[in-house]
Amino acid sequence: MVLDTPEGYTRMDTASLADYLAGLPALRARLGGAPSAWQIREVGDGNLNQVFLVDGPDGSLCVKQSMPHIRAIESWRLTVERTSFENAYFAAVRPHVGGLIPTIHHYEPRLYCLVMEKLEPHTVLRRGLVAGNRYPRVARDTAEYVARATFFTSDLGQPLEAKLDGIARFAPNHGLIRITSDLVFTDPYRINERNRWTSPQLDAIAAEFRADVPLKLAAARRGQQFLSHAQALIHGDLHTGSLMVTPEDTRIIDPEFGFYGPIGMDLGAFTGNLLMSYLSQPGHATPESPRDDFAEWVLAQIPIFWNHFAQRFSELWETQPGGDAYAPSMFAAEPSRVAMRGERAAFIARLYDDMLGFAAVKMIRRILGFAHNIDFDAIADPDRRAPCEIATLRLARMMLVQPERVRTVDDLLAAAREAAPRAQPVSST
Amino acid sequence: MVLDTPEGYTRMDTASLADYLAGLPALRARLGGAPSAWQIREVGDGNLNQVFLVDGPDGSLCVKQSMPHIRAIESWRLTVERTSFENAYFAAVRPHVGGLIPTIHHYEPRLYCLVMEKLEPHTVLRRGLVAGNRYPRVARDTAEYVARATFFTSDLGQPLEAKLDGIARFAPNHGLIRITSDLVFTDPYRINERNRWTSPQLDAIAAEFRADVPLKLAAARRGQQFLSHAQALIHGDLHTGSLMVTPEDTRIIDPEFGFYGPIGMDLGAFTGNLLMSYLSQPGHATPESPRDDFAEWVLAQIPIFWNHFAQRFSELWETQPGGDAYAPSMFAAEPSRVAMRGERAAFIARLYDDMLGFAAVKMIRRILGFAHNIDFDAIADPDRRAPCEIATLRLARMMLVQPERVRTVDDLLAAAREAAPRAQPVSST
Repeated sequence: MVLDTPEGYTRMDTASLADYLAGLPALRARLGGAPSAWQIREVGDGNLNQVFLVDGPDGSLCVKQSMPHIRAIESWRLTVERTSFENAYFAAVRPHVGGLIPTIHHYEPRLYCLVMEKLEPHTVLRRGLVAGNRYPRVARDTAEYVARATFFTSDLGQPLEAKLDGIARFAPNHGLIRITSDLVFTDPYRINERNRWTSPQLDAIAAEFRADVPLKLAAARRGQQFLSHAQALIHGDLHTGSLMVTPEDTRIIDPEFGFYGPIGMDLGAFTGNLLMSYLSQPGHATPESPRDDFAEWVLAQIPIFWNHFAQRFSELWETQPGGDAYAPSMFAAEPSRVAMRGERAAFIARLYDDMLGFAAVKMIRRILGFAHNIDFDAIADPDRRAPCEIATLRLARMMLVQPERVRTVDDLLAAAREAAPRAQPVSST
Repeated sequence: MVLDTPEGYTRMDTASLADYLAGLPALRARLGGAPSAWQIREVGDGNLNQVFLVDGPDGSLCVKQSMPHIRAIESWRLTVERTSFENAYFAAVRPHVGGLIPTIHHYEPRLYCLVMEKLEPHTVLRRGLVAGNRYPRVARDTAEYVARATFFTSDLGQPLEAKLDGIARFAPNHGLIRITSDLVFTDPYRINERNRWTSPQLDAIAAEFRADVPLKLAAARRGQQFLSHAQALIHGDLHTGSLMVTPEDTRIIDPEFGFYGPIGMDLGAFTGNLLMSYLSQPGHATPESPRDDFAEWVLAQIPIFWNHFAQRFSELWETQPGGDAYAPSMFAAEPSRVAMRGERAAFIARLYDDMLGFAAVKMIRRILGFAHNIDFDAIADPDRRAPCEIATLRLARMMLVQPERVRTVDDLLAAAREAAPRAQPVSST
C-alpha cells in the first residue's frame, strides 16, 4: 500500500537513523564516539508511532517519528504531521511547566522526527502500576503540570491574542482530534468493527451499553464539549501511558493529541486511568502479592491529584491573572476580591464535574473500544479480567449518569471501593 | 499620524474608487456608462469603516473599505484586515443562508475592499425602528438566518475537520475580538476614558454598576464564555444596525466580527437591541405619535424571533445532522430518537439562557460604554433619554443576575413591560 507522504519523508530504521544523527554535529557530540558504536533499538509500544532509543559512549537520545498510518494498523491512515503538533505543544507549555517534560534536542519537520532526552531509568507509569510499584511524586507532579499547562494557556492566564494564535496553531490537528471523537465518544456506543472486548464475558454489558440511552446521551454531551469548549491548551491523551516516572521524577510525554479543549479532558484522563489501575489490581493479585495495600495506594493518588490541582489552579488565578476573562481591573476593590474566591471555587467545581465525565468515557473506551490498556490486558485469564472490566464499566456509568452520587472526591473513592471486584488470587480459583 | 498599512494599500476616496471600479470590466459593465457619469457618495455611519454607494446608468454597487484605525477615532488603531474576515464569513455562510445576505461581487485583498450589492430601497433596521416603522418579516427572517448560519457551522451540522478549518480561519480576527472583549464585557464595569453616559442623570447608576459585584461576576462569566465557547461561526455583532430591511426583505450585513463563538451571542445581540428599541420608544413618543402600539409591536418581535429560531434549529438538528456531536449512528433506535427530543430541548433551553445573558451585557455596553445606539441618542432631551436608559439598565441587570425571573420569553416580555418608563410626550413635559 502506497501512502502519501511529504516530499523528502522516509520512514526511519535503525540504520538510516544512525546516518541521520551522524549528520547533526550537536547530536553526534552528545552521543559520542563513532556511529558504528551507537546502539539503536526501536521500542515504541503505543498505538501510533515508532520510537527509537539511541545509546552512545557519551550519552543517549530518544527519537520519535510519526508514519502516515497508525503503528498498530498500516491500513489505518493518519496524517504524518502529528509529531509537529507534539513539538508545538511542548514549545507552548515549556515556559510554564519547566522540568516536567523531556528536553527537546531537535525537531526535523521533513521527517516528522522529534529528538529528545532519553528518560532513564524512567518507566511508563502504567507499566509500573501493573507491576505494583509506587511513585510518591506522580500525583502531585501531574496535578502541578495540568494546573500550570492549562491555566497559562486559558483566558485566565494569557491575553486573547495569544490564545487565538494557539487555537489557530492546533486547530489543524484533524487526524488525532478525529481519533478521539470517534474512539472515545462514539464507537464504544455503537456497532463498529474496530471495537473489541473480553468475549463472551462482556458481550451482555457491551450490548447493554449500546442500548443505554441516558449513558449514550451523557457520553455524547461530553463529546460535544470536547469539540466546542476551547478552554485551554490540553495534552489530550494524559493517561498513565503518557507519564514516564521514577520514584523521584515525573515527565509528561506524547502530547501529539494537543489542541484547545476542555481542561477536564486532561484531569479525567489521569483520574480515569488511576481508577482503571485500582479496579484491575484484583486481577493481578497473587497469594504472595495480594495487592490490597497497593490498590489503596493507587486510589489515594486521586485525592492527592485533584486537591493539589484545585489548590494550584486557584492560586495561579489569584496571583497571576494575565488573561482577558475576569479582568482584574473590574475586581480590584475588596468586596470583589472576596466574591472572586467564590467564583474561583465554582469554576473549580465545574472542572471536577468535567473530570468525572471525561474520566468515565475514557474508562469505557478502554474496555469496549479499539485501544485497550495493559492494566486489564495483562490479566491473562479472561475470567479474572472480566470482573475487573465490568466493575470499571459500572463505576464509569455511575459517574456519567448519576454524577450526584460522586459529588466529592471522597464519594468517588467510596464508589470505587464499592465497585471493586473481590481479589481472586490464582491459587484459590 | 502614520499608520502601518499593507504594501499597496491606499485609502479610497470617491475619485480613486471610480478609477478602481473602472478598471474592473465586470463591475464597470454593471454600473454602465462612463465613470464620469457615476455618482459616488460616502455614507458610512458605523464606528469602524468607510462605505461608498455607487450609482451608474445601468446599476449600482456598495463598496466597503476598512482603514488601519476605527472610523470614529483615528488614533484608535485597528487591523485593516477586518474586511477579509467579513468576506470569509459571507463565503462560509452563503451556502446555508441564501438570499439573506447581500450578493458579493468582488473582494480586493490589497485594498481590503468589499464590493457588493447596493441594497435599495433598504434601510438600516435600527433607523427604521427609531422612525416607528414596522417590518413584518424581520424577526422571522433573522431567526431563520441565525438558525441556519450557526447550525451548519456547529458540531451538529458539519464534520469536525470543517469546523476546525473554520476555527483556524477566524481565530486571527484579533482586533475585533479584542474590541468585543473590552467594550462589551469589561469597560462598562470599570473606570475607562472610552466610556460615556448621559450625565449627570446616569452618574449614580454607572457608579452603582461599577460596584455591583454580582452583576460584574455575571458579565465576566459571559465574557469568559464568549472567548472559550467555540460553538459555531457567529456573526458577532448582530444588532439592529447590522440588518438592512424593507417590509418585504431582510439582509444581514457587517459580519466583520465573525469568529467561532457562542450562538447565544448572536441571539442576544438581536434580542437585546429589540429590548433597547422597545424601552426607547417612550422617548420618541409625541402627542401625534404616542408609540404605544408600535412599542408593543417591537416587543412582539422577540417571541417571533426566539420561537422560530428554536423550532428551526431543532428541526435542522433532527433532519440534517451532519456533525460529529451526537453521532446519528449512536441514536438510531426508537428509544434514542425519543430521548433525543429531550436532549434537543435542553440544548435549546441553554441557548435561551445564553441569549438572555448576552442580550443584557449588550444593553449595558450601549448605555454605559463607548459605542451608543441612536435608539437612545436620537432622544435629544437628556431628561427624556435618561429614564429610558435607566429602565434598560435595570432590566439588563435582572436578566444577568436574576435570570430565574425571566425563565421564558413571556416572562421576559412581562419584565420589559414592567421596566418601561411612562411615555413623556413633549407637550406634557
